[in-house]
Amino acid sequence: MRRLEMADAFALVVRRHREALNLSQESLAEKADLHPTYIGMVERSLRNPSLNVSKALANALGVPLAKLIAEAEAIQRGKSS
Amino acid sequence: MRRLEMADAFALVVRRHREALNLSQESLAEKADLHPTYIGMVERSLRNPSLNVSKALANALGVPLAKLIAEAEAIQRGKSS
Repeated sequence: MRRLEMADAFALVVRRHREALNLSQESLAEKADLHPTYIGMVERSLRNPSLNVSKALANALGVPLAKLIAEAEAIQRGKSS
Repeated sequence: MRRLEMADAFALVVRRHREALNLSQESLAEKADLHPTYIGMVERSLRNPSLNVSKALANALGVPLAKLIAEAEAIQRGKSS
């Protein structure tokens, strides 16, 4: 398996939070003012989102971006060490 | 003043950490495997870096990315609310 990059771990965290809120990709996209296709690509690690887009996603998920990043770094530590 | 975006706040935090370590932009660039010009552009908010680049910067600064983001969010709250 290739090394888990930050964007890969972030993808898992975004999907987990979105599903915990019972939000569709479309609803999250609308809240974050992003295209639904883009959300799908982020969640499949096909995009390495910018900080501003990541912050918009965190706002739409109702959590600080630092929390999502901390969870992503925990996943990275767990899977890549 | 325009609203402080995440990349703007992150720019301030990266510069603060780099200077606290007495690192030049060139040294930070080398550690993060990025171009020195790119570091300068990030610190002047001329770039909205990706998560993977942001993580490389955090690694080079020796701190978790979640810490840099938390500091950036604190700056955003202080300046934009």
